[in-house]
Amino acid sequence: MNGLMMDAPLLLSGLIEYAAEYHSGTGIVARDIEGDIVRLNYAQSHRRIKQLAKGLRRLGVRATTRVASLAWSTHRHFECFYAVTGIQAVLHTVNPRLYDEQIIYIINHAEDEFLLVDTASLSIVERIADRLPKIRNFIIMAKAGRIPPNTLRDVIVYEDLVAGEDGNFEWPSFDERSASTICYTSGSTGNPKGVVYSHRASMLQTMTNATSSWMPGTRNGVREVLMPVAPMFHGNAWNQPFLCCYTGSKLVLPGRAFEPEKLFELIDGEQVSIAAAVPTVWMILTDWMKTTGKRPSALRLAMLSGSPPSRELMRTLVMDFDLDTFLNYGSTEVLGGSAGTRVPLDAGTVIEDEMGERLRSGRAMFTPKIRIVDENGTSLPKDGVSKGHVQFKGTWVASGYLNGEGGSPLDREGWFFTGDIGSIDSQGRIVISDRAKDIVKSGGEWISSQELEAAAASHPDVAHASVIGVPHPKWQERPLLIIIRKPGAQVDADELLKHLAQRVAKWWLPDAIEFVDELPMTGTGKVHKPTLRAQYKDYKLAPEPAAKPQAEVRLS
Amino acid sequence: MNGLMMDAPLLLSGLIEYAAEYHSGTGIVARDIEGDIVRLNYAQSHRRIKQLAKGLRRLGVRATTRVASLAWSTHRHFECFYAVTGIQAVLHTVNPRLYDEQIIYIINHAEDEFLLVDTASLSIVERIADRLPKIRNFIIMAKAGRIPPNTLRDVIVYEDLVAGEDGNFEWPSFDERSASTICYTSGSTGNPKGVVYSHRASMLQTMTNATSSWMPGTRNGVREVLMPVAPMFHGNAWNQPFLCCYTGSKLVLPGRAFEPEKLFELIDGEQVSIAAAVPTVWMILTDWMKTTGKRPSALRLAMLSGSPPSRELMRTLVMDFDLDTFLNYGSTEVLGGSAGTRVPLDAGTVIEDEMGERLRSGRAMFTPKIRIVDENGTSLPKDGVSKGHVQFKGTWVASGYLNGEGGSPLDREGWFFTGDIGSIDSQGRIVISDRAKDIVKSGGEWISSQELEAAAASHPDVAHASVIGVPHPKWQERPLLIIIRKPGAQVDADELLKHLAQRVAKWWLPDAIEFVDELPMTGTGKVHKPTLRAQYKDYKLAPEPAAKPQAEVRLS
Repeated sequence: MNGLMMDAPLLLSGLIEYAAEYHSGTGIVARDIEGDIVRLNYAQSHRRIKQLAKGLRRLGVRATTRVASLAWSTHRHFECFYAVTGIQAVLHTVNPRLYDEQIIYIINHAEDEFLLVDTASLSIVERIADRLPKIRNFIIMAKAGRIPPNTLRDVIVYEDLVAGEDGNFEWPSFDERSASTICYTSGSTGNPKGVVYSHRASMLQTMTNATSSWMPGTRNGVREVLMPVAPMFHGNAWNQPFLCCYTGSKLVLPGRAFEPEKLFELIDGEQVSIAAAVPTVWMILTDWMKTTGKRPSALRLAMLSGSPPSRELMRTLVMDFDLDTFLNYGSTEVLGGSAGTRVPLDAGTVIEDEMGERLRSGRAMFTPKIRIVDENGTSLPKDGVSKGHVQFKGTWVASGYLNGEGGSPLDREGWFFTGDIGSIDSQGRIVISDRAKDIVKSGGEWISSQELEAAAASHPDVAHASVIGVPHPKWQERPLLIIIRKPGAQVDADELLKHLAQRVAKWWLPDAIEFVDELPMTGTGKVHKPTLRAQYKDYKLAPEPAAKPQAEVRLS
Repeated sequence: MNGLMMDAPLLLSGLIEYAAEYHSGTGIVARDIEGDIVRLNYAQSHRRIKQLAKGLRRLGVRATTRVASLAWSTHRHFECFYAVTGIQAVLHTVNPRLYDEQIIYIINHAEDEFLLVDTASLSIVERIADRLPKIRNFIIMAKAGRIPPNTLRDVIVYEDLVAGEDGNFEWPSFDERSASTICYTSGSTGNPKGVVYSHRASMLQTMTNATSSWMPGTRNGVREVLMPVAPMFHGNAWNQPFLCCYTGSKLVLPGRAFEPEKLFELIDGEQVSIAAAVPTVWMILTDWMKTTGKRPSALRLAMLSGSPPSRELMRTLVMDFDLDTFLNYGSTEVLGGSAGTRVPLDAGTVIEDEMGERLRSGRAMFTPKIRIVDENGTSLPKDGVSKGHVQFKGTWVASGYLNGEGGSPLDREGWFFTGDIGSIDSQGRIVISDRAKDIVKSGGEWISSQELEAAAASHPDVAHASVIGVPHPKWQERPLLIIIRKPGAQVDADELLKHLAQRVAKWWLPDAIEFVDELPMTGTGKVHKPTLRAQYKDYKLAPEPAAKPQAEVRLS
C-alpha cells in the first residue's frame, strides 16, 4: 500500500526554477576569465540557462549524453550545471589542473560527446583535441569577440548558442535517479575513477546542507552570501551552486583568480558571509590579511574540507579573525560525509580545548551512516579512541565507479570504504588520522603518517615533512621521515628526534630521517606517496631503530 | 543512465535509529494520561519501539496492515508512530474529539485491523466496539495495573506487549513510497476523507522542516526543545515527532492536559524553546500568563498554524512576551504549505508594519509549488493583491484520498485545490482571506467572510462574529453578519455598521445584522457554516442594502 502523495521527482532544474521565481532579488556574482565581474540575478540566470538548454538540444544533446566541461568557477559554468542536467544529460566536470594524459583518458573513458571549455583552458584542448575522437563539438565559453585565435575544429561559441534561442522552455520531468554530474577521483594509484552523481543524491544532499544542523549558515532573517573557493570541478564546488538556489543565497564565484588579493576583493566587496576552501587556501589568505592588515567586512564562517587543517590555522581563523569554523569530512565519493556543525552545547558546558573541538569533522547526521571497522570488517566502537577504516552508507554515497572501474568499493554488507583511517566518537564526530594506504604497519600496530608528519612540520626549520613505511625484517614496516628544510635552516636528525619525542609515542619515532631538496608532487599539490615509496623501496634501516617499537602499547 | 549512488530508501525508522545512536543525551518528556511525567532518552525510546514492533508483528501486524490509534500526545503514542510505520504497517491516527459516528465511519473506512487506545479514550471504544467488526485486537496503551475495568473483548495490554519482546530487531527496508500514516480531514461537508502520507513525503518534509529557512529554530550550537501542543492526531503533530529525531531536539508532549497552567508547567519546566499551537491555544495561554504574571523560562518562538491569528494575538506574543512568531500555512493534505520564516531582511530594510508581516504565512520554499488561480483555472499574478484559489503541487501534497473518496482533488494540470482563497506575493508569502465555500459572491466580486468577521470581531462588544452569504435577486449573494454580543454588551446594528465602515470597502458592508445567543459549532470548535447557511437560507434581505454594492470596484 503506497501513500497517496504526489509523485514528483527531485530534480536539479527545480532549484533554479524556484530561485528564479522567489529569489530574483539576489543571484550570482562571478569573476570571469578575463577578470571582469559579472552580475546576474537568478531570474536572469535562469533565462540564460533555459536558452542554453535549448541550444544544447539543438546541437544534439539528449538524455544520457555526456557533456564535459573544462572550466573554472564562472557564471557560465554555473549555467552549464543546470542546463546540462536539466535536460537529463550528464555534466562531466574535468579538472584543468590534471596532466594532458589524464584529461584525455577521462574524457574518452566517460564517452563525452561535447566539450565546454573556457578561454583559460583553451590551450589544453588545442593540445589534446586530436585524441578526443568522440567529441562532436567544442563549445567555447565566451563571447565571439573574446575568443583567442585557436586551431579547434567544430567550434561553437557559447554566447551565440545562448543568443540563438529564446527562454521559452519547460524543464522535462524524469527519474530522479538519473545521472546528473560526473567527477573523477584524482587516482593516485591506478586509473582515475568516475563518480556519477544522481539528481536524487544531489537534491537530498542540498536539503541536508540547508539544515541548520549542517551549515550554521542560513540564519533566519538574514541572507547569507556563499563563496565556494573550491573550484566547480571539485565535487560540484562542494554542492554550493545547488545550495544557493535552495536557500536563496547570493553565490560568489572566483573565476580562476585564486590570488589572495583577488579572493579578498570579492569576499570583502560582495559581503561574503561563508567562504569554503581547502586549508592551504585559508593559510595563504590569512597570511595575506595579516600582512596587509585587511579584515573582510561580512565574513563570519570559514568552511574547511579536503585535508585536515592544522591547529595553528584554526587558531588564526578563530582568534585573529574572529571567524567561526566548520570542518567537513567528505570526498568525491561521499560528498559531505559529516555535518558542518559542532555538537550542540547544553547550558553550562565548559570546553577545555576549543581548537581540539574544531579539529573534529562535524558530526554524524541522518543519512549517510558512518562506522569504523578493523582489518576483518568488524565494527569498532564509536568511542573517539578506537581507530579503523572509515566506512559510509547512505543516499549520497557512491555505490561504484563509471564502467565498473576499479571493481566495487563496497564491502559485503554494502558499506563504502573511504580508504581513510580514523576514529568516531559517540556524537559521530570523525578525526581522520591517515589514508589507509599511507599508514605504517609496525608490529601489528598502526602508526599514522599524517600525525607524524604534522609533528615534524611543527618544527620551525621544517618546510615539508613526509612519512612512508619501509620494510623492516622484524616489525614488517617502520617509519622513514623525509624532510625538506626551510631555506637556510640547519636542523639535523638528532634535533628533530628530540622534537618528535615530546609529541608522539616513543615507538612512533622514525627509524631514519632523510633530508632532501624536493619531493614528488601530484597535479593537485599533494606528495605523491607511491613515487616516494618506489624511490625508497630498497632503503636499508639500521638494525636497531631510534626507539624500540612496543607492540604491547596499543594504539586504541 | 542512472547515477552510481547507493539506493537507500528514505524511511521513518532511520530517524529513531539515528537519534538513538547520536542523540541519546536527549529524548522525550511526556505527560501521560494519569498526569505523570515520563522521561525517556532516544536510546531508551528506540529500544521500547523495537520491542513494540516485534510485539505487533507477533499479533499479526504485517506490511500494509492498518493500525488505528485513538490517543493523546504521550510517549506511547510517539512509540507507535515509529513502531507501526517501521514494519511497513500504517498508523491511522484518529481524533478522539470526533463524534462516535465519525470515529466508527473512519475506522471501518480505513479497514483498520488493530486499535491502539489510551485510557482517556477507552470509554469511546467501549461505546463503539461492537460496530468495529474488522478490529482484531484492542491494545490498551497503559500498564496492566492502571487499566480501568472495561467491557472490551480481545484486549492486549500495551506494556505487556512491549515487555514480552527483547530489543533485538533490525528495521526492514522497503519502498519509500509506502504508506506511513493516515489522517482524516474533518469533513465539514460529505464524508471525512483519509489523507495517506508516505515515508518519502514525511521524510522530505522533515528535511525541509529542519532547514534554517523553515524553522528559525535549530540554532547552531544550541539544542532546541520542541513542544507540539497540536495533538498527534492532527497532521502527525505537525511533523514534530519526526523532526525532533532528525535534529536531535528534545520533544515535550502534553498528554491530554491542555489547561494553560499544565502547558505552562511543561513549557517553563522543560525549557521549551519552540512551541506549536493553534491561535486559540496561544490566546488562552497568553491570557493566563498575563493574569498570573508568569513568564516561560526559555520559550523564544511561537509557531502558529491551523487558522489565521488576530493582529492582537501577534502583538501580545511579540510585544508582551518578547517571542518570535512563525505562522505556517498548511492543511492535512498539504502538511506545511509554506516555510516558517519571514523573508530574509537585507541590511537597511525598514519594516513599516511588523505585525502585518507576521500575519503573512511564511513564504514559498522549494517543493511544494504554490499558485493561485481564478474560477477558470487560469494562473493569477503573485502580486500580493490578486486573490484566487490557492493550489499546491509537490512531493508532500496529497494526490487523492483513501479509496478515492470525494473524487480527485486535483485539477487537470495536477494541482491540488486547497479550498482556500488567498493572495501570494512575489516572495511566495500567502495571506488566506477565506475558505472558497465561505466567500460571499456579490455581483461577480468576492467578499471575504473571514475579513468581514475579523473587522466585526474587533469591536469591543462583540464576542463572536460570523458571516454567510444569503441569496439576493440582483447581486446573487450579499453578506449577512451574525453576532454574539459579549455578556451585558449593547452594541446595535447601526453602531456596528459605523465600526465596519471604517474598516472595509463600502460595498462589503453587510446587508443585515442578526444578534443571536449561540452559533452551531463543529467538533473542533469552529462555526459550522453549512448549518448556519441552512438556518438562514430563506432569509429575506431588505430590497436596498445598507450600502450599494459597486461591481466596478475590483477586489484585486
